[in-house]
Amino acid sequence: MAGRHNDLTDVAGIRVGHYQRVGEGWLTGTTVVLSPPGTVGGVDVRGGGPCTRETDALAPGTLVEVVHAICLSGGSVYGLAAATGVTDWLGERGVGLPVGPNAGEVAPIVPAAGLYDLRPGAFDCRPDVAFGRSAAEAAARPGGLGPVALGSVGAGAGARAGGLKGGIGSASVVLEGGVTVAALVAVNSAGSPIDLATGELRAASFLLPGDMSGLGDLRRPEASDVAGAAARLSGVSPRVGNTVLVVVATDAEVSQPQCTRLAMAAHDGLARAVHPAHGLTDGDVVFAVATRSTPLASPQATSSLLQRAGTAHPAALGGLMAAGADAVARAVVRAVLFAEAVNGVPTYRDLYRSALTSVH
Amino acid sequence: MAGRHNDLTDVAGIRVGHYQRVGEGWLTGTTVVLSPPGTVGGVDVRGGGPCTRETDALAPGTLVEVVHAICLSGGSVYGLAAATGVTDWLGERGVGLPVGPNAGEVAPIVPAAGLYDLRPGAFDCRPDVAFGRSAAEAAARPGGLGPVALGSVGAGAGARAGGLKGGIGSASVVLEGGVTVAALVAVNSAGSPIDLATGELRAASFLLPGDMSGLGDLRRPEASDVAGAAARLSGVSPRVGNTVLVVVATDAEVSQPQCTRLAMAAHDGLARAVHPAHGLTDGDVVFAVATRSTPLASPQATSSLLQRAGTAHPAALGGLMAAGADAVARAVVRAVLFAEAVNGVPTYRDLYRSALTSVH
Repeated sequence: MAGRHNDLTDVAGIRVGHYQRVGEGWLTGTTVVLSPPGTVGGVDVRGGGPCTRETDALAPGTLVEVVHAICLSGGSVYGLAAATGVTDWLGERGVGLPVGPNAGEVAPIVPAAGLYDLRPGAFDCRPDVAFGRSAAEAAARPGGLGPVALGSVGAGAGARAGGLKGGIGSASVVLEGGVTVAALVAVNSAGSPIDLATGELRAASFLLPGDMSGLGDLRRPEASDVAGAAARLSGVSPRVGNTVLVVVATDAEVSQPQCTRLAMAAHDGLARAVHPAHGLTDGDVVFAVATRSTPLASPQATSSLLQRAGTAHPAALGGLMAAGADAVARAVVRAVLFAEAVNGVPTYRDLYRSALTSVH
Repeated sequence: MAGRHNDLTDVAGIRVGHYQRVGEGWLTGTTVVLSPPGTVGGVDVRGGGPCTRETDALAPGTLVEVVHAICLSGGSVYGLAAATGVTDWLGERGVGLPVGPNAGEVAPIVPAAGLYDLRPGAFDCRPDVAFGRSAAEAAARPGGLGPVALGSVGAGAGARAGGLKGGIGSASVVLEGGVTVAALVAVNSAGSPIDLATGELRAASFLLPGDMSGLGDLRRPEASDVAGAAARLSGVSPRVGNTVLVVVATDAEVSQPQCTRLAMAAHDGLARAVHPAHGLTDGDVVFAVATRSTPLASPQATSSLLQRAGTAHPAALGGLMAAGADAVARAVVRAVLFAEAVNGVPTYRDLYRSALTSVH
């Protein structure tokens, strides 16, 4: 069952903020996730064209296990500047690893990644340091605790999914035992989230009750829509840069290396929702964070692996990993469904009107 | 034999620029390496507390094989901001991967790493975007082609090597067949570059003629200096953050994956010059770049491995890797020898006066 907001903020303490500029050549933005004290983080980079910052610090076995914020941004390599804004903003507030003899001398850990949305916006209109500060401030306001705005906002403002408008999606699930796992995605994929032959969203079968919130019900679109959309999308030329950026969050009490496993597993949700995924022109990255406030329930069945002190039961961890991957697939579907048309990039709802029943 | 300048600029087309601020609380800086078109790059992170940017893009097999600049900076996580300055500066000049339909629409690839020098400078005095721009501009000026200023400059301005003043060092060697390999280091290590029992620099035996340029000859220091230095250095408290940042450059015609092997091998030079190295509080990183203008000579002896089209002969590549590691060891020794005292951090020359013969 989905959580209260059905988004990343269903993990207690997680805050999300968007900032974007649209119009006068601008069509890009930044999304910041702020995590509570003690949050551990891992990362898995599987795209062939990654654009990242502070990922080496998250390798298992390094000095750093915690994450203070994650910054997702448009603007390709230029957009990594937004992470500096988040780092400065946190440092000014004394949030970070203590690294000096005096109070407030901290080094905030802000892993970040960029996606390529330099078209359809103007090439020189891209996120800078101020975008990161603004998105962090948005996350710190009461609204940062959710619900998270979805669609053409934040890092998803200028995003595209194949030939369709992409954007921000999110979803959550509460597991037996009370653990919550959620995903937030910025979908800007080279591959398509739909099966052009049927017009169906590839990961529609993973949706949970509530995932369609307010959009009506999803059904197989009519042949006329399928033919019209196929014709429209076949004319879209491929881009040099793409990328799906993902943040998976959970309150489960898992270790930093286990968090890295959670990030690795989450890529499977992307594989189910987008085809093809993880291409050479995609910089697909999954960050996973765990606030560690809720024990991960252990099945009754004993196992020698249970003896490993301080680690979650393999079966329970496996369930968390699978649920995280499913949350990613659902979040991708929701990103595409909630996207709004901009600069002539069509949305799924525009091209497949018959796929959505009218809302009563 | 060492190259003309005995530094990184002996690799044709490589430019180096420093920018630092010293005084009024400032004691930090940035060093930028600009590489000519077609330069490929690899990276190997072996420190336990890395602070990096754009390293995932250099993983073998990704879309990106080229490097346009490398940015080394003080300021820990905050100093990564300097890389944004370099990226913007290059982008404004149309230097980068073409990613748009119009001229000048490029994505500069600027891998970067930070070192922790927030003490002895003031904690809030650290490199920002402007430091990166200034260092890139310095590299672009005629002086950027060398010789490279060594010691307490650029990313080495506030650096320390164990209890001694650290800084920027560089060295080069020209191999049989004409290939040049060189290293530039910013030494800010937790470990010491000297053997406290003898006062000798750990990697002194790797020095080549000319490495002492102008400093006289190196000899075993007298017992009184050794005792005095040991007493002085035993009082130095360890820091939270350290790091040795390394750039290895060659003109050899090697592939991007082979460049990654060159980076991996270069860490051995660090292991020989600093003890301990690669600690949990070190963010030790080696970037390796190859301009690929000079064929890597193949020994006469044939080998089945020779059949691998497009790859350098294993023996020739092995020689390049070993020479790169030795250049790193020499560069560390030179960094320590050329360092100048600041904020009461003693230099090797101060503590071991008897180790250096007077210059005639």
